[in-house]
Amino acid sequence: MEKIIYQKSVEQWCVLEVSCKGPDTGNPYQEHWLKGSFCGEHEEVEANGFYDGDGWYRVRFMPSFSGEYCFRLAADFMEECGGRFMVTPACGENHGPVRVANRYHFAYEDGTPYYSVGTTCYVWELQDDRRIQDTLDSLQEAGFNKIRFCIFPKHYDYNLGEPRSYPYEGTPMDSRVLTKDNFNQYTGKKEGNHWDFFRFHPQHFRHIEKCILELQKLGIEADLIMMHPYDRWGFSDMGEEADDFYWKYAVARLAAFRNVWWSLANEYDLMKAKTEYDWERYARILCTADPYHHLRSIHNCFPFYDYNRPWITHCSIQRQDVYRTAENVNEWRIRFQKPVVLDEIAYEGNIQHGWGNISAREMVRRFWEAACRGGYAGHGETYMDPEDILWWSHGGKLHGESWKRLSFLKEILTETPGIGLKPCERSSFDEVCAVPESPVHAGTYYLYYYSFMRPSFRDFYFDDETEYEAAVIDTWNMEKKPAGRHHGKFRIALPGREYMAVQIKRVEEAGHE
Amino acid sequence: MEKIIYQKSVEQWCVLEVSCKGPDTGNPYQEHWLKGSFCGEHEEVEANGFYDGDGWYRVRFMPSFSGEYCFRLAADFMEECGGRFMVTPACGENHGPVRVANRYHFAYEDGTPYYSVGTTCYVWELQDDRRIQDTLDSLQEAGFNKIRFCIFPKHYDYNLGEPRSYPYEGTPMDSRVLTKDNFNQYTGKKEGNHWDFFRFHPQHFRHIEKCILELQKLGIEADLIMMHPYDRWGFSDMGEEADDFYWKYAVARLAAFRNVWWSLANEYDLMKAKTEYDWERYARILCTADPYHHLRSIHNCFPFYDYNRPWITHCSIQRQDVYRTAENVNEWRIRFQKPVVLDEIAYEGNIQHGWGNISAREMVRRFWEAACRGGYAGHGETYMDPEDILWWSHGGKLHGESWKRLSFLKEILTETPGIGLKPCERSSFDEVCAVPESPVHAGTYYLYYYSFMRPSFRDFYFDDETEYEAAVIDTWNMEKKPAGRHHGKFRIALPGREYMAVQIKRVEEAGHE
Repeated sequence: MEKIIYQKSVEQWCVLEVSCKGPDTGNPYQEHWLKGSFCGEHEEVEANGFYDGDGWYRVRFMPSFSGEYCFRLAADFMEECGGRFMVTPACGENHGPVRVANRYHFAYEDGTPYYSVGTTCYVWELQDDRRIQDTLDSLQEAGFNKIRFCIFPKHYDYNLGEPRSYPYEGTPMDSRVLTKDNFNQYTGKKEGNHWDFFRFHPQHFRHIEKCILELQKLGIEADLIMMHPYDRWGFSDMGEEADDFYWKYAVARLAAFRNVWWSLANEYDLMKAKTEYDWERYARILCTADPYHHLRSIHNCFPFYDYNRPWITHCSIQRQDVYRTAENVNEWRIRFQKPVVLDEIAYEGNIQHGWGNISAREMVRRFWEAACRGGYAGHGETYMDPEDILWWSHGGKLHGESWKRLSFLKEILTETPGIGLKPCERSSFDEVCAVPESPVHAGTYYLYYYSFMRPSFRDFYFDDETEYEAAVIDTWNMEKKPAGRHHGKFRIALPGREYMAVQIKRVEEAGHE
Repeated sequence: MEKIIYQKSVEQWCVLEVSCKGPDTGNPYQEHWLKGSFCGEHEEVEANGFYDGDGWYRVRFMPSFSGEYCFRLAADFMEECGGRFMVTPACGENHGPVRVANRYHFAYEDGTPYYSVGTTCYVWELQDDRRIQDTLDSLQEAGFNKIRFCIFPKHYDYNLGEPRSYPYEGTPMDSRVLTKDNFNQYTGKKEGNHWDFFRFHPQHFRHIEKCILELQKLGIEADLIMMHPYDRWGFSDMGEEADDFYWKYAVARLAAFRNVWWSLANEYDLMKAKTEYDWERYARILCTADPYHHLRSIHNCFPFYDYNRPWITHCSIQRQDVYRTAENVNEWRIRFQKPVVLDEIAYEGNIQHGWGNISAREMVRRFWEAACRGGYAGHGETYMDPEDILWWSHGGKLHGESWKRLSFLKEILTETPGIGLKPCERSSFDEVCAVPESPVHAGTYYLYYYSFMRPSFRDFYFDDETEYEAAVIDTWNMEKKPAGRHHGKFRIALPGREYMAVQIKRVEEAGHE
């Protein structure tokens, strides 16, 4: 029997990795295979292994239950073998992977509601160590619980630098020819690049995995953008065989990390080399190869991908209108019957592009609009920087004002009875009213949001008997002030400022408390 | 021959009034008629007269040309008679009535462009003299050139007082029963009112006419709301015969004032007693009886009236969406092929209603959005007041911040070559670019507006040769700063703040100057 290395004990929803040595001649990525079969009392999982360089082959497994497990390992280069390990129950902040819950919302696998307050830093993990640490510190301080980022490096306005590593063996084009004015001519060009699309650079992936684990420690979901069009290296147009090879390899490496979400692409419709046939093929690979069924979506520039496709777990939307953005959540919920995540509703900043220069107030307003309509918005920052270090792409430090207000929103959302909010149908034209998604909590909770409107008061009436406790929320100044107990017709005074909300909770009778 | 009284000389586009004594017994409004026929070198006009009380009958005429005129007077109670008068050319700020010009815009009859910057004070003219003077002073200071107001008194939230006069003989219901909470129960009720809908109260109309003339002196168009649903007196539901009688009387009195516009109704769709048959009948009366063809429209609450009707000269729109408001001007221009006037896009204020509590910044933003899309927005103020004196209904003093910025916009609009702006088709998704409506001025002028976006710079390119002069406009702080002469590709620095615009004018060669 070959020598295999693995942990004897692993925590539920963490990574059990089985490694062994194997052939390192020829092209091990293509010429050999390894797979694992993991079996506990409540599950049996098949997982593909991968070649990790230097003669090492590995297979990873994420146990969904605690208890005793055994596994079998099979490969083309060795005899079948196996072992046993213990899975200890999840502890601390480990709640498992995030799943769709209550149709339009999310919860961790242990049932804890997950209110997505995400940000975007496209290639934060491909920056130097110091910037990566800055990003992690910033993420923690801000309280974001999701971040979108790319596996492939990024070539774009304000993004002309080289990444810290490449996913493939080979050499890139000479980027010294690039300037702020001519860079766009190189977008999508393959000339000057020399890559072997069938030999990965494992260090690139190992580094990303380390970053995913760092995020995991902070309770942050890694929304992985698997493909994107901002490319001067040819990674966006490798051909069908190499694409599929990439998908299988990436999924084999990454699926066992509980905080992974799959985003097939950013602005899929700008990837001119790809057709619906390609996207559906990738989805098929992903659905087959990911034994844990992590969340799956795909992000648009102009037209939406068809979010009604069964493999898509939630919408990952870039707003389609400059003016009406998060306000469309109601419509999209009805249309797609899935969680509506607005991963791009323009970024707070001051660059020349309209998608990257809204104010902090407008950003926070879009978050609240989305939340009170039963959806989830996403953050990003694009402030001009003397060294072109923009949060949206590089991470680093946050310079804006919206991020400070988003964990306050998240706190308010955690007060929702059950899992998730939905738009209240009987709300007035000049308010957004959210109520619990779960019918069992009907009538217990109302969250009214007034957006850019500035009422000096609002009148309420639910019924004559029930007692309600009200609070006035200043969503910008992050203040929540009690506004008394009421029943029948009652009036709540407001300061006549923008961005106010009123929270109304039914007072539970003593017997229920 | 009866004794007739009239001026021997009148200025072009002013009112020539011919008066005579007649029967004052019975019901002179119904039982007698008077009409005039006015004839100059370039026009012949028939005008209906009206009974003005105390045995006086009058007919009014607005000459559109200067020179010698004669007239004939006919009535059922006297022999036909006539006279002669001189019309002197318009002078000073008298440019004649406002007409549709360049399909989507307005100009005075002498060809001077008219850029509508209007406001709404529904019953300012039915307040006491001191408040009326305050209103006129405020209008003048603000530089508004249009005001919407009603002939009938108004019963509504914050509007429970009695008007200074009523249009009919009779007595109103006892308004002492009204409170802020119960007033709505009286809306549309006729009980307790005792009016003779066939006997007008001429003093009510004489007073309104005086106010129209005061506006005229200030260069302000009187956009008369002829009917409306905010009523506790029964004026909104008088029946067909009384309605038609009212229309004929009002048009006979008011049509000769050059600054009159006709608005058939405010929120026509809330007048449940009226059908399309009624509105079209009123329009027919108006088109027949108004010899000067003043501008005609009708204002909605929810659905638009069909602005494609030939009698409608321009759209008078209340925004249909809370979020996307002035941004729809492009679409409405295409749909209706008429000037798009957004008479109600929410008011600056802090009352409880969403239509009356937007910020000054948002109001000014909507004006600029409308203007740069080739339309016209309207102002109003609804700030809470200890005595319930809200500008939107009562006039008085302005308390807000948007009005100060609107005459600055008007000044910028007067720099447009030719008459009016249209949206530029080749503008980017993240800007609104206006160009001259007139094809003859194509390529000479560009007005870019960035709304709530905050670019730190924008790049421009028109062609390699032409020289352009640029200016950066801060629409909120009302500053216009030169930004140099440029040709080819050029960059304009911006402050990364909201509400900025860039104006670009082609530098004319010396030979053309």
